[in-house]
Amino acid sequence: MANQRVVDLFDEFIELTRDFIVRHGLRYEDYAAITQYLIRVGEAGEWPLWTDTFLEATVDTNSYGEGPWTPSAIEGPYYKPGAPVLTERPYTLPMRPDEAGDKLLFKATVRSPAGEPLATATVDVWHATDEGLYSFIDAGVPEDYILRARVPVDQDGAVEFRSIRPAPYEIPKNGPTGDLLNSVLGRHTWRPAHLHFLVTAEGYKPLVTQLYFEGDPYIDSDCAEGVKPGLIIPLTKTDIDGDSWTLGEFKFVLQPE
Amino acid sequence: MANQRVVDLFDEFIELTRDFIVRHGLRYEDYAAITQYLIRVGEAGEWPLWTDTFLEATVDTNSYGEGPWTPSAIEGPYYKPGAPVLTERPYTLPMRPDEAGDKLLFKATVRSPAGEPLATATVDVWHATDEGLYSFIDAGVPEDYILRARVPVDQDGAVEFRSIRPAPYEIPKNGPTGDLLNSVLGRHTWRPAHLHFLVTAEGYKPLVTQLYFEGDPYIDSDCAEGVKPGLIIPLTKTDIDGDSWTLGEFKFVLQPE
Repeated sequence: MANQRVVDLFDEFIELTRDFIVRHGLRYEDYAAITQYLIRVGEAGEWPLWTDTFLEATVDTNSYGEGPWTPSAIEGPYYKPGAPVLTERPYTLPMRPDEAGDKLLFKATVRSPAGEPLATATVDVWHATDEGLYSFIDAGVPEDYILRARVPVDQDGAVEFRSIRPAPYEIPKNGPTGDLLNSVLGRHTWRPAHLHFLVTAEGYKPLVTQLYFEGDPYIDSDCAEGVKPGLIIPLTKTDIDGDSWTLGEFKFVLQPE
Repeated sequence: MANQRVVDLFDEFIELTRDFIVRHGLRYEDYAAITQYLIRVGEAGEWPLWTDTFLEATVDTNSYGEGPWTPSAIEGPYYKPGAPVLTERPYTLPMRPDEAGDKLLFKATVRSPAGEPLATATVDVWHATDEGLYSFIDAGVPEDYILRARVPVDQDGAVEFRSIRPAPYEIPKNGPTGDLLNSVLGRHTWRPAHLHFLVTAEGYKPLVTQLYFEGDPYIDSDCAEGVKPGLIIPLTKTDIDGDSWTLGEFKFVLQPE
């Protein structure tokens, strides 16, 4: 038995596509080029990359809804569940002994829309290295949850961890997705530097989001169009035991279930 | 340097798609299902089948334009150039000695919109067997242009050939295209019986079309939506040397270049 919602969605989408073909007078040569491109995306194994680049930001907007809480942002393809839960203060993300990059101190609070601290919250964070690489994904970074961790929140809903400042990076640029951005559309394949978060707390909708940094060269031209104004934070300097650290701060607000 | 037409087309199509996602409130579970489906179509090697099934009929409408000439129809994926040019009358399509099926006599004229006979025209015809199979495509049918030929037109613009009557057939139904039609949309995977034609003549646009038969059980529900009213012909009976033959007749009109 057909699912009527899916039938209606498919019929409407095909109708939209056919209208588009007619309105622009697309011909067999366009059709052949498009069919060849669809084949190429599949052969390169890039459908998840393609849809994440061009459509996920729109899907994401639907997923958390708008309200008096932190906006969500795209999850991207690099999340790994099961990151270690940090237990020893000062909380520090797993990293290599010689992990390159500016030292980063991140401080946040997790609250309800009414301002109540959510002491049961956990902040699952993952981010790229100083070279824009991810553990589990990029060769050369060991897989053991480098720059990935679950950080507990204290009784006041406060959370902080130490890490290094991630760098902007390019999505794979030699396949059909990169080709479309670079050669066809004349755009670049960079994402601005960012921290990924999955913030959970009992009684609240899980929030998947990203934080970006003021002044990033790609803040206005993210190839995945994942940046939202409410998710750009300033970076300042702070002192820890006489060392200079980069400091980022944010207030997470979760949506009640 | 980006091609501005392609950039504009892509941007508009992505915008349409995003509007669709927002309007229908598609969420991550829909997005994941759609991405998985795109992957499956590629893995099954069905992108050409998929686009031919759902979009080619629309592209085709643009390709020949509307006017006082024969409507075009989808080419489909089974055309093979280089079919033998028939030289001996009565013209008979290549077939196996025991080729099953009703005997078919097809008679046509090829003319300009003003009614002038186009004596230089060639009618390139290809069609399925009595079991709905194509030479070159389906196992069990030898490849040597069975039921495929180029038939010359005489001085009066008349053309005729003998063959067998093709049967309706199902497109591949066990892959993601068939699944979408059958399981998801609740439709069937049949195409009505048809003859494929590529009609060419000096000074005229090549016409790619198909002819369908009145009374076919799938005439109103072609899974590829390729049927047009002006392309449905009656089949009658005629007598050749005391044998009963099925007779189909048509008047091709070509579009001046």
